[in-house]
Amino acid sequence: MCQVLGLERKGVMHSDQRTRFSVKGEPVYHYCAVSSFSEYTVVHSGCAVKVSPHAPLEKICLLSCGVAAGLGAAWNVADISKGSTVVIFGLGTVGLAVAQGAKLRGASQIIGVETNPEKYEKAKAFGVTEFLNPKDCKEPIQQVIKRISGGGTDYSFECIGDTGTVATALQSCCDGWGLTVTLGVPKMKPEIAAHYSAFLSGKTLKGSLFGGWKPKSDLPSLVEKYMNKEIQIDEFITHDLPFEDINKAFSLMREGKCLRCV
Amino acid sequence: MCQVLGLERKGVMHSDQRTRFSVKGEPVYHYCAVSSFSEYTVVHSGCAVKVSPHAPLEKICLLSCGVAAGLGAAWNVADISKGSTVVIFGLGTVGLAVAQGAKLRGASQIIGVETNPEKYEKAKAFGVTEFLNPKDCKEPIQQVIKRISGGGTDYSFECIGDTGTVATALQSCCDGWGLTVTLGVPKMKPEIAAHYSAFLSGKTLKGSLFGGWKPKSDLPSLVEKYMNKEIQIDEFITHDLPFEDINKAFSLMREGKCLRCV
Repeated sequence: MCQVLGLERKGVMHSDQRTRFSVKGEPVYHYCAVSSFSEYTVVHSGCAVKVSPHAPLEKICLLSCGVAAGLGAAWNVADISKGSTVVIFGLGTVGLAVAQGAKLRGASQIIGVETNPEKYEKAKAFGVTEFLNPKDCKEPIQQVIKRISGGGTDYSFECIGDTGTVATALQSCCDGWGLTVTLGVPKMKPEIAAHYSAFLSGKTLKGSLFGGWKPKSDLPSLVEKYMNKEIQIDEFITHDLPFEDINKAFSLMREGKCLRCV
Repeated sequence: MCQVLGLERKGVMHSDQRTRFSVKGEPVYHYCAVSSFSEYTVVHSGCAVKVSPHAPLEKICLLSCGVAAGLGAAWNVADISKGSTVVIFGLGTVGLAVAQGAKLRGASQIIGVETNPEKYEKAKAFGVTEFLNPKDCKEPIQQVIKRISGGGTDYSFECIGDTGTVATALQSCCDGWGLTVTLGVPKMKPEIAAHYSAFLSGKTLKGSLFGGWKPKSDLPSLVEKYMNKEIQIDEFITHDLPFEDINKAFSLMREGKCLRCV
């Protein structure tokens, strides 16, 4: 996925272009730059973040991507204002984190678009007020959204990673000041196609990478918010598996049966 | 062009869906909603703007579209900050108005991209600091712009109406906070195609219709700025022709020989 997007990271340290791992003399590269699945790793000091020693790592690890990305998209990138209307495409971890962020900002309507009804119950707890299943809609989903939001939402979030959905999200927000934020990483076809008139009528399309947070300076404060119970993290974790069951974890994810597995 | 974009206006009054003109009993419709080329017209009172009676109509008519659209794109939509870098694709009236707006905001670098070198002299007076002719570049224009702006400009403006240029403009602004504003009305192919990674790296694409101005409340203050010599308008007018030469005026425009003809 990262290669398709040109976001591929080198498996070596930037300072000397070499790896810090080896097995029986053979180099082992840093997977996705950070060696995600190793028990210990080596990162540049500029990339290490110091957080409260009391924070449980098995929970706050979720702030390293999905949850922080969603909260940041709602707070930093969209800067959702009180009383506004929001539609979220895809109610996975990122989508639910956006919902949480929107709820904490006081959004009055948070519409969730999701083909898997098993996700609705959890989504309610995170703030989603209405659900739409595209499979159940007889007309284009953007028309339904426009109708129930009174002309289109103030904000729309694309959290699936489907470039076709970006166009639908643009059509679902309102003319004049509608803002579409795209957070998903497309698995295929990274070209976004959108009709020029969407922009001419005043809409904006913004991307969001890690929710606009600066990890070094911003992550510690997100950890503090969690410790002060201002944001929810535990509720995203549906499974806890040992490393040897990593493939089981990927299966659960693919089948849509887990939200986050630690 | 407006039909292609779905911006077609009815040729009748909104209140009763009827026209106010006739010739020998035959209805004559309001061209493009405002009857652009008639000497007198009828518009809804909500659409009539009262301006200073001392303002010369043969000059401030330029504020009804191109010049105001460009200034507003720079000031309202992009909100250009002092010391920033700007690239403008297309140095017609709108592009030069963007340049004027950027200059008045204190932009440090204003790059103009234009295939017609005859436009360079005038563009200098409006604030363009550097010129690029895509025909003279051996490498893609976005690479040249990235090099001379130190990694991409803070803002890029698409003032041609070419959806391919929108993608180039996105590639020409910087990662992280680069903002692309599109103002041109495309003559064909109204689909914008852009690589997802541009947005994921933090860029924003914004449309601009009439520069974000609210005509009724904002136009009088633009007229005041002109009367106080805070903005230039006269310099855009290269030709002045009587109505019977309207086709000559269109020819001048198509041949790129006039900037604005009144």
